Amino acid sequence: MSSTYGDNLRLSIFGQSHGAGIGMTLDGIPAGLPVDMNQLQVFLNRRAPGQGDISTPRKEEDRPEILSGIVDGYTCGAPIAALIRNTNTRSGDYMQLKDCPRPGHADYTASVKYGGYQDVAGGGHFSGRLTAPLCIAGGMCKQWLEQQGIFVSAHIAQIANIKDDAFDPVAPELNNVHHDFPVLNTQMGHKMRQAILEAKENGDSVGGIIECAVTGLSAGVGDPMFDGMEGRIAKIIFGIPGIKGVEFGSGFQSAAMMGSQNNDPFTITDGTVRTKTNNAGGILGGISNGMPILFRAAVKPTPSIAKSQESISLSGQCSRMLEVKGRHDPCIVPRAVPVVEAAAAIAVYDALLQAK
Amino acid sequence: MSSTYGDNLRLSIFGQSHGAGIGMTLDGIPAGLPVDMNQLQVFLNRRAPGQGDISTPRKEEDRPEILSGIVDGYTCGAPIAALIRNTNTRSGDYMQLKDCPRPGHADYTASVKYGGYQDVAGGGHFSGRLTAPLCIAGGMCKQWLEQQGIFVSAHIAQIANIKDDAFDPVAPELNNVHHDFPVLNTQMGHKMRQAILEAKENGDSVGGIIECAVTGLSAGVGDPMFDGMEGRIAKIIFGIPGIKGVEFGSGFQSAAMMGSQNNDPFTITDGTVRTKTNNAGGILGGISNGMPILFRAAVKPTPSIAKSQESISLSGQCSRMLEVKGRHDPCIVPRAVPVVEAAAAIAVYDALLQAK
Amino acid sequence: MSSTYGDNLRLSIFGQSHGAGIGMTLDGIPAGLPVDMNQLQVFLNRRAPGQGDISTPRKEEDRPEILSGIVDGYTCGAPIAALIRNTNTRSGDYMQLKDCPRPGHADYTASVKYGGYQDVAGGGHFSGRLTAPLCIAGGMCKQWLEQQGIFVSAHIAQIANIKDDAFDPVAPELNNVHHDFPVLNTQMGHKMRQAILEAKENGDSVGGIIECAVTGLSAGVGDPMFDGMEGRIAKIIFGIPGIKGVEFGSGFQSAAMMGSQNNDPFTITDGTVRTKTNNAGGILGGISNGMPILFRAAVKPTPSIAKSQESISLSGQCSRMLEVKGRHDPCIVPRAVPVVEAAAAIAVYDALLQAK
Amino acid sequence: MSSTYGDNLRLSIFGQSHGAGIGMTLDGIPAGLPVDMNQLQVFLNRRAPGQGDISTPRKEEDRPEILSGIVDGYTCGAPIAALIRNTNTRSGDYMQLKDCPRPGHADYTASVKYGGYQDVAGGGHFSGRLTAPLCIAGGMCKQWLEQQGIFVSAHIAQIANIKDDAFDPVAPELNNVHHDFPVLNTQMGHKMRQAILEAKENGDSVGGIIECAVTGLSAGVGDPMFDGMEGRIAKIIFGIPGIKGVEFGSGFQSAAMMGSQNNDPFTITDGTVRTKTNNAGGILGGISNGMPILFRAAVKPTPSIAKSQESISLSGQCSRMLEVKGRHDPCIVPRAVPVVEAAAAIAVYDALLQAK
Repeated sequence: MSSTYGDNLRLSIFGQSHGAGIGMTLDGIPAGLPVDMNQLQVFLNRRAPGQGDISTPRKEEDRPEILSGIVDGYTCGAPIAALIRNTNTRSGDYMQLKDCPRPGHADYTASVKYGGYQDVAGGGHFSGRLTAPLCIAGGMCKQWLEQQGIFVSAHIAQIANIKDDAFDPVAPELNNVHHDFPVLNTQMGHKMRQAILEAKENGDSVGGIIECAVTGLSAGVGDPMFDGMEGRIAKIIFGIPGIKGVEFGSGFQSAAMMGSQNNDPFTITDGTVRTKTNNAGGILGGISNGMPILFRAAVKPTPSIAKSQESISLSGQCSRMLEVKGRHDPCIVPRAVPVVEAAAAIAVYDALLQAK
Repeated sequence: MSSTYGDNLRLSIFGQSHGAGIGMTLDGIPAGLPVDMNQLQVFLNRRAPGQGDISTPRKEEDRPEILSGIVDGYTCGAPIAALIRNTNTRSGDYMQLKDCPRPGHADYTASVKYGGYQDVAGGGHFSGRLTAPLCIAGGMCKQWLEQQGIFVSAHIAQIANIKDDAFDPVAPELNNVHHDFPVLNTQMGHKMRQAILEAKENGDSVGGIIECAVTGLSAGVGDPMFDGMEGRIAKIIFGIPGIKGVEFGSGFQSAAMMGSQNNDPFTITDGTVRTKTNNAGGILGGISNGMPILFRAAVKPTPSIAKSQESISLSGQCSRMLEVKGRHDPCIVPRAVPVVEAAAAIAVYDALLQAK
Repeated sequence: MSSTYGDNLRLSIFGQSHGAGIGMTLDGIPAGLPVDMNQLQVFLNRRAPGQGDISTPRKEEDRPEILSGIVDGYTCGAPIAALIRNTNTRSGDYMQLKDCPRPGHADYTASVKYGGYQDVAGGGHFSGRLTAPLCIAGGMCKQWLEQQGIFVSAHIAQIANIKDDAFDPVAPELNNVHHDFPVLNTQMGHKMRQAILEAKENGDSVGGIIECAVTGLSAGVGDPMFDGMEGRIAKIIFGIPGIKGVEFGSGFQSAAMMGSQNNDPFTITDGTVRTKTNNAGGILGGISNGMPILFRAAVKPTPSIAKSQESISLSGQCSRMLEVKGRHDPCIVPRAVPVVEAAAAIAVYDALLQAK
Repeated sequence: MSSTYGDNLRLSIFGQSHGAGIGMTLDGIPAGLPVDMNQLQVFLNRRAPGQGDISTPRKEEDRPEILSGIVDGYTCGAPIAALIRNTNTRSGDYMQLKDCPRPGHADYTASVKYGGYQDVAGGGHFSGRLTAPLCIAGGMCKQWLEQQGIFVSAHIAQIANIKDDAFDPVAPELNNVHHDFPVLNTQMGHKMRQAILEAKENGDSVGGIIECAVTGLSAGVGDPMFDGMEGRIAKIIFGIPGIKGVEFGSGFQSAAMMGSQNNDPFTITDGTVRTKTNNAGGILGGISNGMPILFRAAVKPTPSIAKSQESISLSGQCSRMLEVKGRHDPCIVPRAVPVVEAAAAIAVYDALLQAK
């Protein structure tokens, strides 16, 4: 049940990178919600490849066809299903990977789990391409959240060793994220692009960190223990290929803090309870406290690199060197930014759907 | 459905800190598995309070009564249920918290979510005490994993700014963790204890980081996307009160790494596939790769501190200072170590139960 | 995951007939709902054994202890847990059943599934005694439904060949069900009791049919396809030991009807939509239509009978005769009436909790 | 979450009758299972409309496109997704139904639940057409079951008052079901066809009963309580539009039986445990006992009839007569036979996937 998410909504993602198509079904959504397909397409385009020198030249339209669940621009209560056709597939590039797994990639583990029957072409179901249907679902959830005054926005917090400014934890300015390259500080963004290009020239890749904020969520959403907002968000964020860490608020920094520093003092103004700092990342006891939800996700460097790497031949039971061919992003972090937003939007919308 | 975990097993945790009792039900466990109650008690004692100057003096026996599911020392296929009676309760300490929420604690968010009906005594269902039933379930899963040659062990990686040695990522020596104070380097452990005592004397608290390793798990366990091992583990780890970050393998460090550094080269010896490094933390594409699973969890400083803190009066709609009374750990990290092991054991055992 | 039910609430039932105790956890219930323990006990007493000459003389108090989730008479948002101690156990009666399975009982299938590790005493987890915790959960749900003007009531529709009157499908008079022996027509009830006593004297048993009505449920509750009200109710009703059939409205009778007969004509009065007949049992397309929900459940005759029966010796691999000793109801139908009500109340309450 | 089924597999069905397409995703299926698309098409054709004078003349190809999950004829471990395009849609027929709900149909309840946003064309998501994707999933499960020696077959047990022969409960001859009109007794089949044609001529419809058998399932599959085989099967069978009753083995007949009659005597031959009769329908305590699983499902008469019927105008708040136009089966029972088989196959396969 790998590709299903949600307690109150039920998202199910299907497809392989080089199969007939990829898509999703989204069940449990209330009827009567508007869906703006143009706005959705703008959002999907932020994730799409082929946007210049720092991403893969593979060009897919990523234009979803709505198969069900939306009538005349409104949800009709039936499960929403959407399909993106795979058009630009080059399966030939991938055949050697069945015998010689790429380091850092799922080739080997998929081979063990699926007994060699996995679809190896383009990474199959493990491909980053599967984040496109996640963005369809998340892009819709974003729209529905915005209608409630809840906004989700992310930016690149770090690539290689270059750090962007951070969101103001108590009052993040979501509109300050630049659109073409999603950072707050364009100067740092410029350096990041250079670091990506440098890695590309070396046949290498770089990782990064994405910071995401959710504003406008009122207090009282989420649950104690396993359905806390942290667990709900982490579960879907770790569903994005390449994510290896998730932290909320002061996160790993809180290890070195005193309680008197880390505890966020409460204040009240005109009946509104707030905290002066936001080390909790907007979540106490698994439940939103009315402050912005803040989290950071670590993205590992793209495993597919042009450089020669040590691998093995499964048939030959011996070591061999591997050079990965095909088109690959030297850094997936910029394209992962809208994916993180999509995932966060789905998690928050799912929590909101729950009966109080 | 806050307190339920698992896809193939179903763990349900109940209880409030100062109610009649706390406990758990664990459904979906195969019949015929032995349960060593003495071994379980030894494990539970690692979490129990009252172990000296660095933990709360509240003394509970934490001796579970098995209500069902185990007959003559073996699971019988019926749900396992266990109960720990609450004996040492002092509800009077907590009454003011209904009006004046503790910074960093769930008092305020629970009040909003439950409309004032939440059990405020001792933190109610949000109390760290609820990790005792988690340890009952996890202690059993640990035993069942050990019978398959799978071992779960954690240690304190950091308290305040003091860092323990790390596990060897490719060959962690789980037995090197000391039992009385769970670190690898006793000198560092000594400094950590001093840091905790210092915080205690100041009426303050400190946080930390726990590192956990799972060895002996064969390749092929877990799933792509949302049921990846990272997501499965993160979901239950974030269910432990006070956890604010989870990272796998090189985690947040991978942001600054090149793909050629972060990718773990494959090797093969006598038919066994391994990797030379373990930046992946034993997980590729959400599926175990046969290397040790490695993750780190950030624990925030205990929010309940003796120091006076800024809070508010909900009835008075005004600011006020709060001094938290009662017995509290100046640092929950040492007692959280077996809890992290328990949670990891449950997540791994659940994944293993899945039909291949 | 045999003993867990619910989409929005999560009921988990534990215990074996002759273990330490039986009970349940009920997660996902809103905070602030009152629970009247006296009213609950009155409800539980309707299921309790030892009520005269037609039920087993085993006398249990069936008085639940609330372990968590209720504070000062109100739900507090934490999972509700309740425990009934097993006091009157006579395990010795059951030892032979491990080798010689009772016809019509789960002895054999449990032995295969659990590899001989199942708890055979008193039927273990398969015992009708496990319906007591179902009644705890259901009794609470009944109270919460009643506060919304929704009432659940059942009666014995048939025992052996003797039939009670049926509820008026469009306006069932729930209060007309007699309390001591739950029928509408006391004369028929008298005959039923005689049939039960006759079976008892013959060392035999009888089955029956229970009819249940839910009134006051507004239109629009439930879902299409697999979460239709029929499927939701059937799933929990078939969880009651001994139930072998469930039908809604005209049910199996509708096979012989024309569409023009079976379709319920709509009417509208003062803005209220109703149907003139109720062959649909209050459910169209899986969703309540505002009419009473009506269903019938078939209860097989108690499999444990005193009469000598053909069975086998599993160790001897041969046929042998079996005489079941111990205390058994010659007919469980009267005691199953509140259990059916409890199950229906849980299913309806769960559906109501769902976000619209 | 109306349209999702399964504990170990996860089936999700999408589509509306007159939308872009209908289909399904099926997650959790092991890799390496063959899928014979021709055999699947033969199965789907049994459900397809336009098969002569007793079914609707609407002609759809119902030829599914596999979007993912199957590579070179074998499952690859990724979710299986399949799509059937809707080609022959005539939405104009249905517009009046938004104001004037069809008796016996979901028009009114969907309108209440979805606030008027439901897709009314062709019954939308409530259409019997949605059973086509159920048959895709079920047809695959049937193939996988057959490879394990498990066979699922159903026949028309009754239409109007005309009854087919019954399966031999202890040794049903599945191959004796005729293919063109699925009965055991062709003479009775002929009478049934006449009854259907007669209803059609009268602008009316008839219901019926379907009997289904599952052979070859070994003992030990299923669970006690809510995940018993009865509950698992009933939940999915009630997901088929028009089903109003489900009974197992002697079902409602057992109400009038004595325990000594209804209990199936055990026998043992060459180590194989069997029962002499099969009143239990192959299920004891929710778990298969190795005998054929037998159940019957009641199908109500098609609610869409040509005859004038009493309905209401929701806008006018008054009574009015309704004549339903469009193409409708006078009896859906023959086409529902493969749907019942599909649903049973899914439920059984799901139970089999469970870790023992």
